[in-house]
Amino acid sequence: MYDGTNFAGFQRQPDRRTVESVLTQVINKMAKNPDPKILVYGSGRTDAGVHALAQVVHFDFPFTIPEESMRKGLNSMLPMDMEIRRVEIVPATFHARYDVSGKRYLYRMDMGEFRNPFKRNYTGHWKFPVDLDKINQALGDLVGEHDFTSFVASGAQTRTFVRTIYEATCHIDEANHELVFEFYGNGFMYNQVRIMVGVLVEIGSGTRPVHDILRLYQVKDRKQARRTVPAAGLYLKHVYYQGEDPEHPTKLPQRQR
Amino acid sequence: MYDGTNFAGFQRQPDRRTVESVLTQVINKMAKNPDPKILVYGSGRTDAGVHALAQVVHFDFPFTIPEESMRKGLNSMLPMDMEIRRVEIVPATFHARYDVSGKRYLYRMDMGEFRNPFKRNYTGHWKFPVDLDKINQALGDLVGEHDFTSFVASGAQTRTFVRTIYEATCHIDEANHELVFEFYGNGFMYNQVRIMVGVLVEIGSGTRPVHDILRLYQVKDRKQARRTVPAAGLYLKHVYYQGEDPEHPTKLPQRQR
Repeated sequence: MYDGTNFAGFQRQPDRRTVESVLTQVINKMAKNPDPKILVYGSGRTDAGVHALAQVVHFDFPFTIPEESMRKGLNSMLPMDMEIRRVEIVPATFHARYDVSGKRYLYRMDMGEFRNPFKRNYTGHWKFPVDLDKINQALGDLVGEHDFTSFVASGAQTRTFVRTIYEATCHIDEANHELVFEFYGNGFMYNQVRIMVGVLVEIGSGTRPVHDILRLYQVKDRKQARRTVPAAGLYLKHVYYQGEDPEHPTKLPQRQR
Repeated sequence: MYDGTNFAGFQRQPDRRTVESVLTQVINKMAKNPDPKILVYGSGRTDAGVHALAQVVHFDFPFTIPEESMRKGLNSMLPMDMEIRRVEIVPATFHARYDVSGKRYLYRMDMGEFRNPFKRNYTGHWKFPVDLDKINQALGDLVGEHDFTSFVASGAQTRTFVRTIYEATCHIDEANHELVFEFYGNGFMYNQVRIMVGVLVEIGSGTRPVHDILRLYQVKDRKQARRTVPAAGLYLKHVYYQGEDPEHPTKLPQRQR
């Protein structure tokens, strides 16, 4: 679990504080700095400012430490914006990235009239009225296998823009006055969730037709989706591994090892 | 309203980012940097890391700007961790500090088993089980006029340690798994709320007798209250001005002008 606010994303970068680099440093310290260095493999990247409620990583540790001792030991060395929730000894064949079968993301959109200083790092902000019925209709268009070319940032490197979304929901968190989106799918491309949420709130506020997503699938043009909502509202909520969800046991097509 | 995380408290200090200095800079910029400089008077200080949901300040602005225009203009110049909620033109005799009749503070104490990276700047943390009935009995001992010498940090400069607490409550926020304390009184001294909360959670967890607060009033000894809970959980929730609360219209004794 990490608060992404003060990380330059997950992936290691020279001279930047990233999740991977902080974690790698602490794990190597616990192993008395072995040579070669222990490498950490994440389920995937998260961007600068994006949070994780349950990121998954694996690494090969040179000696055996009980799971709970390792969890406590790592937490005692990690900074306060990162916390290990669980440590599990896995078969040597397990790979945190290649064995992923799906991911679940959450997006929190504050609907307050004013910007809230306490939410600046933890939500997007949308101050226009929204019609939840319209958003729910549009969410129906997202579920299934689609070509998401119009919903991908230009920097994305991928062989295909086809992905499958298993679930897409939205509810209003009355207590916090927020729209909360959840997406579960076999994989999401660079900025895809943030671009989808941008389209959805525009549909909710009536500045796009309710079924505009069907048109966006056709035009395959990133520029027409326009808005990328802020990283601050995005949370990696769960990483699914092969066989964990019987309804969606593996990615289709099967990922290469 | 401000998120106190990245401020070295309210009060101006050389070379430190404080609420007063950021606000003073922006207000003077809006007034085209007049000479002498416009000074900002707050209702009182908050410490480093302490938050405000409704701090109050006053200043003498050299020309008239409609309230709502000034609010928007200041917000457009202020950093994201501070937000002006309301601007009001007041009689020249109004003083944000001297006219205070009471203050209300909130304290959020996370009860999670693990430290939560998303709460590190916004709550205290207490992982031991608590008995809310015991806390509520102890809160009854806080209400009224008492000598709070045992509950004041050693740095406090004040003529008397007698203060009156009008309301002291605690409830469990189930959704967030937090204890939430609220205190309304005619004034609170340096660290007083954080020391009171430290005593209250110890009473709740059974490491102090339920009515230990009555004993602490008697002994007048700061060392016996021990724990000062973290600044991160403390919020200035409301500042009351003379006549605003008919039940408690002014401070007693009357403050000197």
